[in-house]
Parts: sequence; structure tokens; C-alpha cells
Amino acid sequence: MKIESIDLFYLSMPEVLDIGDGSQDALIVRVRAGGLEGFGECEASPLTTIAAMVCPLSHSACKPVQASVLGQELNEPADVLRIGRLVRQNSFDLLQADHALSGVDMALWDLLGKKRGEPVWRMLGWNESHGKEPYASLLFGDTPQETLEKGRAMRALGYRAIKFGWGPYGWGTLAQDEDQVHAAREGIGADGILLVDAGTVFGDDVEAAALRVPSLIECGATWFEEPFVKDAFDAHARLAARCGPVKLAGGEGSHNGYMAQHMIDYAALGFVQIDAGRIGGLAVARDVAHYADAKGAIYVNHTFTSHLALSASLQPFAGLREHTISEYPVELKPLARDLTHTRIERDADGLVRAPDAPGLGVDVDITAVRPYLVDAEIRAGDKILYRTPQI
Amino acid sequence: MKIESIDLFYLSMPEVLDIGDGSQDALIVRVRAGGLEGFGECEASPLTTIAAMVCPLSHSACKPVQASVLGQELNEPADVLRIGRLVRQNSFDLLQADHALSGVDMALWDLLGKKRGEPVWRMLGWNESHGKEPYASLLFGDTPQETLEKGRAMRALGYRAIKFGWGPYGWGTLAQDEDQVHAAREGIGADGILLVDAGTVFGDDVEAAALRVPSLIECGATWFEEPFVKDAFDAHARLAARCGPVKLAGGEGSHNGYMAQHMIDYAALGFVQIDAGRIGGLAVARDVAHYADAKGAIYVNHTFTSHLALSASLQPFAGLREHTISEYPVELKPLARDLTHTRIERDADGLVRAPDAPGLGVDVDITAVRPYLVDAEIRAGDKILYRTPQI
Repeated sequence: MKIESIDLFYLSMPEVLDIGDGSQDALIVRVRAGGLEGFGECEASPLTTIAAMVCPLSHSACKPVQASVLGQELNEPADVLRIGRLVRQNSFDLLQADHALSGVDMALWDLLGKKRGEPVWRMLGWNESHGKEPYASLLFGDTPQETLEKGRAMRALGYRAIKFGWGPYGWGTLAQDEDQVHAAREGIGADGILLVDAGTVFGDDVEAAALRVPSLIECGATWFEEPFVKDAFDAHARLAARCGPVKLAGGEGSHNGYMAQHMIDYAALGFVQIDAGRIGGLAVARDVAHYADAKGAIYVNHTFTSHLALSASLQPFAGLREHTISEYPVELKPLARDLTHTRIERDADGLVRAPDAPGLGVDVDITAVRPYLVDAEIRAGDKILYRTPQI
Repeated sequence: MKIESIDLFYLSMPEVLDIGDGSQDALIVRVRAGGLEGFGECEASPLTTIAAMVCPLSHSACKPVQASVLGQELNEPADVLRIGRLVRQNSFDLLQADHALSGVDMALWDLLGKKRGEPVWRMLGWNESHGKEPYASLLFGDTPQETLEKGRAMRALGYRAIKFGWGPYGWGTLAQDEDQVHAAREGIGADGILLVDAGTVFGDDVEAAALRVPSLIECGATWFEEPFVKDAFDAHARLAARCGPVKLAGGEGSHNGYMAQHMIDYAALGFVQIDAGRIGGLAVARDVAHYADAKGAIYVNHTFTSHLALSASLQPFAGLREHTISEYPVELKPLARDLTHTRIERDADGLVRAPDAPGLGVDVDITAVRPYLVDAEIRAGDKILYRTPQI
């Protein structure tokens, strides 16, 4: 079949707050071919990503992403890989292209899986979709008490692993950060899996981050996530050497497979976190999972948005039985929540897994999110390059 | 003074061809403060970069670039650095932000230099602006004969160093590529400095690239540029070990300082090429120049567009006497050519240098490029986020 259309839906909450919650807006990609449709989601600035999809040609290595997708044949997994290579080759000077490609690639896999009646994880070469321990991903409370209560509430909901991140962490004093981590531990109980996310707040300041390490060790944190900006490999490696049993986690900003590999090799990550909405393809992510496994690192999905994105994020490492932990967004904004009829719920053992259903196995209902659809338009000269599709 | 406005001018040739010529369109940035204005240029997809500048907030780490610039104080060099850090911190999930920041940063330096009556290179800490050997940057001809003639023509114009790149190189047979390189050498003569640019055509296929090495050695090429995609560090390092006297060049895709450092450290570059329109700041580029110097690599500017971009690209390594080679665009499209009254011409010794004049030292004439101005508009909801400014 031939790829006939790419439609882009920019969703947004009426008010977007200046907080670390990435589910306040979304860019949904719908691809149609052969009477079927597939859906994907870019974890990216929607308007900028739309522009990357539709912008005029600048030169041979700076083409709009859609130019390498529309009209292409899509019949087997190799076609999705071929289209991904084509986008990267035709758009390598268009920085935003990897984020745009990520949503398109998901939609292609979803569509192809529906056509073949196969789940994506199977097309990616896995024999089984193993259960993963979902960790509840939360923002730190404004106060330690609030953090404690958030942790306790999540345990009451049955989550055994809980991540706290962003919010005030790293912005105040060392003592305040220590109080937050202790409160988090107290909230989730002695047997909870505690994960801490600094949201790159220390830049590349190894000493500032290292000051926080004793409280993480004391509270038995499993990982210390994104102490630094993603490219500060050397700072990561130096901190990792001072972290004792606490491993560094990071990699969510990787927008190609090489970057994730480099963070394993040069930034000494113990956990590599891949966002399927950014990495530039589910097969690229699958290759990172194999690479991590070979190098003794643990692959983890990075997901803060819809269950469409969650399903996509679970596919690349579905078959890796030992890579058991999974980010599970629990504070979704309505637009992310309402996007899918299907939800990936915890099973009787409390585990989540990539669905055993064709494609991404998640029913997307674009009409359900009509209230959040942003009416947008991009024009250059007398050409309307983008206009919000009718729902 | 306070930053009052950022205006963005999207210029384009009436017809943009699917060739490796990055001067067919441009995004010019004008910043105003304290009754003065400064100019910069993003080496990037104009429309996507405009979107990155003006898009709505997605979350705390995905803000439009202008949000971290407008209203900021600009009185001394430290302010430019502070604003750069702010953009990176507020927009690290907005992939295109680094390209947008690059043009803004140039304009800030230009403006500040005009206010202080100082050239940018002096504000960057250099005592002198040394002459650089300009290399003429050309696309390979469609045939070896055409390449030979292009080389000969450039020698006749007095260029001693000439780079051939892109075009058919790497797309045909090994013999065709060898013929091209031999033709290039013949065209520029035995004493010319020959540089060859593969435009990432070999992906990460070390063997395919290595097959081309004997002809490069035989023809005395000084460097082999971008055999691979920028992130393929390991492929670079393995090829470098097989290149004998020919050094690898690359790094133009670096959109932060870390990436350039990593390419020196892990990709074994002998020449690191930095595009001031992408790296995310002239001080960032200056730091890369110092780093290269300390690590035994040579810093080279990457410039394929206007003399505004050329001046900006020369500033960061103006004071490094031993880093003598400089990319000098010679096949400029009219929009890039007409943008500036001032041109950075070769001196009596055939050298070019960053101007000894306030700011970037290049008079930009926006009215001269009015014929190339693209009338564009971006709207979200009832807000016009961008509309082409009146000239």
C-alpha cells in the first residue's frame, strides 16, 4: 500500500502552566494508507514539529519530513526502517526532524500492524511481551509534606515504584533537597522502589549534584535521574563514580540511537530512558534496548503523556524479561487521558505490558479530544502549508 | 538596556533547488535595544526556526525561545552568556531551540558591540583578529571535467585552498569518486590545498568510506570531511585510524559545545568545523576553539551563507593564530550576497579576517533583500504568533 496522508492534530489544555508536566499539550499524527489508519504521538513542541513536517525545502539535506513519507510504499517492517533512513538522510540539517519522525514512525508501525494483524512488538522481533513494573511518575510536592502525601497516596493505589522529580528539587538549599528525598522515602514506605529525577537542574556542576548523593544513598534510591544536561557526558561519568549503589538514569533527550549508545558508553548510565516520541523510530529504540542489554545497562521507557505514547514506548523492549521497570504516567491531563479508549492498566500482579493486539493495540479517539484541538495555520507566500484538520 | 524586540526575516530564492546549497534561503534575526539594532542569521530551516521562536509554551522546559530573550537586560558580555543559558534551560525539550538561539545570540553580540564600540572578537577575549586562509567552498561538478574546471577557475581567482563536496560524490561507483578527486587535484594544481567533503553520504559504513581513502592520500587531500552522520563517533574513529596523513573534518552539525567536544574526543576529528548559525552562541563556539586548541585539533568555521554569517563565524577563533583555515562561500545566491553592504574580502596576502569594527562589523541592508522576503504567518487559536515584518 501507498502512504496517502499525514494529518497532524495539535492538542492543548486551555491553560498551559509553567511546570514540568509534559502532558499539557500533544501532537498526534494520523497516517492513512490502504483504507487503514495508524496513530502516533510526538513528544515535542507541537507547532514547531508541525513546521518541521510541512516547511518549504531549504536544500537537499533540509527537507520537510513529510516529503520523505508521503507516497512511500508500506508493506512490511523493512519499509518503516527505509522511510526512517530516508527522513534522516533528507532532513539531517533540520534539527526538529527527529521529533517529527518519531510520531510518524509510530503511526506507520501501528498501521502496518493493523494490516498484518500483528502487534508492533512482534514485528520488532520479540516473541513475548513481558510484564513490567510500572512506576508512578510524579512531580515533587512544593513541600516535603506534600511529597510525602503524594507518595503515600500512590502506594495506596498499589504502585510499588515511585519517581519524584522536578518541582523545587535542586532550586533551593541542600537541606531542602534532602528533606524532600527523606519525605519521599517516608511516603512510599521502606519497601518501595524510590526513583529521583533532578530534571537536569545541576547543568554540568558535578559538585552540586554530588552533594545530593548521600541522601539518595541513605534513602535507598534506585536511581538518580538527569542530574545534568544530556550532553555533559564527562560530568555524568564523574558523578557515577561517586554514587555507590545509586545508578544514574538518563537519555530521554536522545533523538537518535547513537546518542543513547553514547550515554551508555561515555556518560556511564545504569538506566537508559528512551522516549519513543523523540528517539526517531521504534526500531531505533529496539536497537538501543539490545545495546543496553549487551552493555549491562537497563532500558526504561520515558513516558509522560498518553496511553498511545505509553504503548509505543513499551514495544521496543517488550521482549527483554530482565528490563522490568517502566515509567507509567499517573497525573495525566484530560487531553492525554481522553485520547484513547483503550488504557494500559495494571494486571493482577500489578504489571503493565505492551498490548497483545494488532499495531499499538490502543484505540485512539480523535473526536474525544476535540475540545482540546488547537485551530492553527501556517502560511508561506500564497501557500497554506498547514491548517488544523476537521475532526 | 532592555531587549525590546526580535524580528525575523525569512528570505528565499524564488525557486529552491534540491541540491546541497544552503544559501538558497535564510533566516535573519534583528534584535533592538536602547535605540540600536543587531543582526544575526540562523543556519536552519527558516519556518521551523520561526516556530521555535514564537510557539506557545508546552511545559517548563519547552518554552519558545523569545520568552527567554525579550525584556532581558543587555549591557555586557556576561548578559549574552546569561541569556544563552536561560534559553537552553527553558527550552531543552524544544529541539530546534539551539538553531533559533544561534541567530539571536549573534544579534545580541552585534548590538552590544555597536553600543560599546568594540568588535565581537575582542569581547570574546581575543587581542587580535588574525588573517585566515579562505578556502573556496564548491559543490563537486556533475562530471570530473566540470570539477576540474571549477577548481581551475577558483585558482584563477586567487584561491589557494579549495573544497569540493556533495554533488555526485559517494552516490556512484568507487572509480567515479576517484576520478572526481583526481580531477579536483588536477584543477587546483599541485600546490593547492585540497579538501574533500562527503556530506555524510556513507552513513556509518566504515568500509565504504575507507575505499575512498587511497585516492585521497594519493591526491594529497588535507581533510576528508563528514564521511558519516555526525553522531557515528565510533565509525569516525575507526576510519581516522586508517586515513594516514589525511585528517577527518566534521562537526558542523554540532548544536551545542558538548557535541563538538565529543567529536574531537570520541570521533577523532583533526579539524572541527563550527557553524555559528547552529552551535547556539559565539561564546560557546569560542570555548570549542579553546578546547580544540588544547586537544591538538584545528578549529575551522563552517559557513555557506552570507557575509553576516561569515563575520559571526570568524569571531570565535579570530585570535588563534595557528588555526589558519577558513571556509569562504563563493557561490552565494543573490539573497545571501545582497544582504550586506560590507563584504569580507581577501586582503593583499589573500587572507580574510573578522572585521576590526564594532559588533560583527558588517552592514546589513534588509531593504536590499526585500525581493526575497517570504510573506509568512503562523497562527494558533486567535493569536497571530508570527507575521512577516514590514521592511
